[in-house]
Amino acid sequence: MNMKLIDAKSGFTIDFSRMNITWEDLDGLQAKFDRAVREMAALENGAVKNPDENRKVTHFTDRIAYRQSELFADVQKFAEALKNGQITGCTGKKFDAVIVNGIGGSALGPQLLQFAINGPYWNEKSDAERNGYLKVYFLDNTDSSGLKDALELVDLETTLQLCVSKSGGTQETFNNLTALEKAYAAKNLNYAANACAITMQGSKLDEHAKAAGWLKVFPMAESIGGRTSETSIVGHLPAALAGIDFASFLAGACDMDELTRRSDYRTNPAMMLAAMWYLAGNGKGDRNMVIVPYSDRLVLLSRYLQQLVMESLGKELDLDGNAVYQGLNVFGNKGGTDAHAFIQQLNDGRNDFFATFIEVMHDADAVKLDGDLAMGDYLHGFLYGLSAALEAKQRPVITMEIAAVTTAELGRLIALYERAVAIYAEFININAFHQPGVQAYKLAAKGMLAVREKLFNALTDRPVSGSAEALATLSGQPESVAAVAGWLNRAAANPELYSVEREFSAADGDWIYTVK
Amino acid sequence: MNMKLIDAKSGFTIDFSRMNITWEDLDGLQAKFDRAVREMAALENGAVKNPDENRKVTHFTDRIAYRQSELFADVQKFAEALKNGQITGCTGKKFDAVIVNGIGGSALGPQLLQFAINGPYWNEKSDAERNGYLKVYFLDNTDSSGLKDALELVDLETTLQLCVSKSGGTQETFNNLTALEKAYAAKNLNYAANACAITMQGSKLDEHAKAAGWLKVFPMAESIGGRTSETSIVGHLPAALAGIDFASFLAGACDMDELTRRSDYRTNPAMMLAAMWYLAGNGKGDRNMVIVPYSDRLVLLSRYLQQLVMESLGKELDLDGNAVYQGLNVFGNKGGTDAHAFIQQLNDGRNDFFATFIEVMHDADAVKLDGDLAMGDYLHGFLYGLSAALEAKQRPVITMEIAAVTTAELGRLIALYERAVAIYAEFININAFHQPGVQAYKLAAKGMLAVREKLFNALTDRPVSGSAEALATLSGQPESVAAVAGWLNRAAANPELYSVEREFSAADGDWIYTVK
Repeated sequence: MNMKLIDAKSGFTIDFSRMNITWEDLDGLQAKFDRAVREMAALENGAVKNPDENRKVTHFTDRIAYRQSELFADVQKFAEALKNGQITGCTGKKFDAVIVNGIGGSALGPQLLQFAINGPYWNEKSDAERNGYLKVYFLDNTDSSGLKDALELVDLETTLQLCVSKSGGTQETFNNLTALEKAYAAKNLNYAANACAITMQGSKLDEHAKAAGWLKVFPMAESIGGRTSETSIVGHLPAALAGIDFASFLAGACDMDELTRRSDYRTNPAMMLAAMWYLAGNGKGDRNMVIVPYSDRLVLLSRYLQQLVMESLGKELDLDGNAVYQGLNVFGNKGGTDAHAFIQQLNDGRNDFFATFIEVMHDADAVKLDGDLAMGDYLHGFLYGLSAALEAKQRPVITMEIAAVTTAELGRLIALYERAVAIYAEFININAFHQPGVQAYKLAAKGMLAVREKLFNALTDRPVSGSAEALATLSGQPESVAAVAGWLNRAAANPELYSVEREFSAADGDWIYTVK
Repeated sequence: MNMKLIDAKSGFTIDFSRMNITWEDLDGLQAKFDRAVREMAALENGAVKNPDENRKVTHFTDRIAYRQSELFADVQKFAEALKNGQITGCTGKKFDAVIVNGIGGSALGPQLLQFAINGPYWNEKSDAERNGYLKVYFLDNTDSSGLKDALELVDLETTLQLCVSKSGGTQETFNNLTALEKAYAAKNLNYAANACAITMQGSKLDEHAKAAGWLKVFPMAESIGGRTSETSIVGHLPAALAGIDFASFLAGACDMDELTRRSDYRTNPAMMLAAMWYLAGNGKGDRNMVIVPYSDRLVLLSRYLQQLVMESLGKELDLDGNAVYQGLNVFGNKGGTDAHAFIQQLNDGRNDFFATFIEVMHDADAVKLDGDLAMGDYLHGFLYGLSAALEAKQRPVITMEIAAVTTAELGRLIALYERAVAIYAEFININAFHQPGVQAYKLAAKGMLAVREKLFNALTDRPVSGSAEALATLSGQPESVAAVAGWLNRAAANPELYSVEREFSAADGDWIYTVK
């Protein structure tokens, strides 16, 4: 079955011929296609498509106007002023690096673009090789090891501190911010003069930054969610600081948006993609989505899509409040490498996935090997060989072709998947734009901090010894033995922070703690 | 249900209390445990446990003796001689970097260890900060972009070229080798003087290296498979070149081996782990294994385990020749970061996984934030909060504690998973040590190269134009239209290599090619 969509202008091609799905199967979804066309039009016309948070969803439309906006020009101007040394750091030296402090949607897109366009070794290049643009580092967690590694490396004086949080209250990001402020203070350096924020106007971060007189605060729209913010200022500023052509990235995304607005599903790659996910996984995500781009530069794509797809589609309730426990697992790495890793299982093992192979058509370098063959010929042969091997076993495969690893092609890919996710959400009647599970998890984490406080506050008569159970009871929280044990183990492992010792009791098969 | 195993000596802890599995469930597997004990003992006593390849499986046992071996001492001596400049590169300069050219099992373990122990910024440090040890780069594909990025960065004169292929015939690795030889030749540099191999004696690579007079060739045992080679010389040499304490890594692995040889499953963490996988996934891998280490330094662990688990367990046939289509999907990234990505789905969506959270007990840095809390307190709170949220929804969780991100702890983790994989394979009666699907795929890829040759050889009367179908027929392979189209598209995209043009035919909805 030939089921290939070709965009002759860009060369972008997507081929569903190996999905074991027929046009008749697809025609059976016509009511869903109609709904998706209608709802996507409503979304683009400003309907409240995220009802739980009572907000519009504007990432598909804002990017059209963004290129011509004052904000776009302001970001470009700021990045160029740093590159040219017109704006300098707290001690008057030219900025040399940026630390992007942000998590989830504030990090994955910028990481993807930076790695794909500037390559794995950008930060090892000289200032001249970087054309004066900044090295880029990420703090995308609240882990002291990541912070320590970055602080040991960068020169605080010449590092721009970019803090990205839409809500402005993301705890992980604020923790890094607090630690960085202290690091500057410890060296008698002015953090504010090196600091820059992207956040919603009026947020906690916005207020903090403005009160402290940060170098720059950029606004972020409320109607753009973190995981779909890569075509907004969240993607733009880190890219611009590293000399990446963001206008072309946006153009690629907008080109794909045009293709994916088509109302005839047969010619709409996002509609087709969503339908394939739906049919392959019985409308419930019964098959894992395995993403394998054949390019070293695209190794972060699967992680980016993992967030976009799973955070959008992994939902308990549908729009009518029914418990549906939806989702679609995404994983992958890169081809041909993965053929020497997990692809053994795809070939031979569980038939519980559909693979998506992405081919980069133009070789980064025309490397001729012995004989007639180029390195890219082998990579191509490996991709087609794997695809044929899977086809022979009726294991479903989608293949895509992009011209090269460029900003435009990345814009195209991201826009395609954003649209397919939104359409799939219509198929299964869920809200793709909220993340209630993350809120629940944040509350649970706060509860854990409360257990800690209660534990150490209650144990006033020190030293006090006992099992986790005994100390949980003593601190008035006998229901929280596991949580108390966790805090005690952590405390015992960190004498720099706590005064707790533990000794193993062979009789109990567990630790006995002494809180000093 | 308390189901926690504690190694009081190292602090290593693994907790199965949140797996919703009872001791009665586990006792029901006693016959499987007995088989595993028997077969693992046979394996360690030299039985042929990889019958398809008619070979022993010695990675569990070789590492005991390896520390005291001549080979170990030889590797250490070689690495120290490079560090000290006693052995120099082809122009007499001290080696400054190493390119590790290897794929799959030859790359993933060294990448994991290097990132975890030396951190993300090792290659950006000065020679003094690296204590004279080498920067480490990887070529783990046959992609011209990865090659180009590396070649643009490194200084060929001072870069050791380490080529790792057990079989000595891995095409991807040979392609890089060929390209590197040409790169040296193009600069009139002596590749052989900078080149070093790890391969089986008598292999194609061994012969090639010895004939060309490479600086050094290290032997690799036939009885150690790629994906379980990290505790052999394959892990050792890259680690030693970067100053990583490999003896301590081996000691950690051997410690874990002792724990996981215990015949009482209740006290054997690998036996318990394998049993959890088995029971959670109905003996068929019905639940995905989600690996989330709470450490920036361990971000590559999930990729390493993805290979180890999926390539070992993803099998079509069991040992009796029955089609069983086994497997166990593995993915993950790192916590707390993932809470802002795919963990929304774990919390709320499909209940089709079990999570494995790995806590690093000692903070890399005791970063105090505002108030009483340290950064590590938040990370701990996030881990426990997520774990509690999942537990409340009966979603299965395994938690582990390791003391710190050290070589010893990594040895422990790798040995634990190696053993659990081997035991699980006994439970489901498969060969965990071969990879027939990879062989099948290699053949299919060769077939694709044959299509290419046939195509361009047949089209002697040039220029010739037509659709892929027409040119497939003209070249005598009408059954290979898709493959022919693939080669023509690739050719059209690479004018540096081919003389093919294409034009889109709106009428056909496909390309018309002209081969010149």
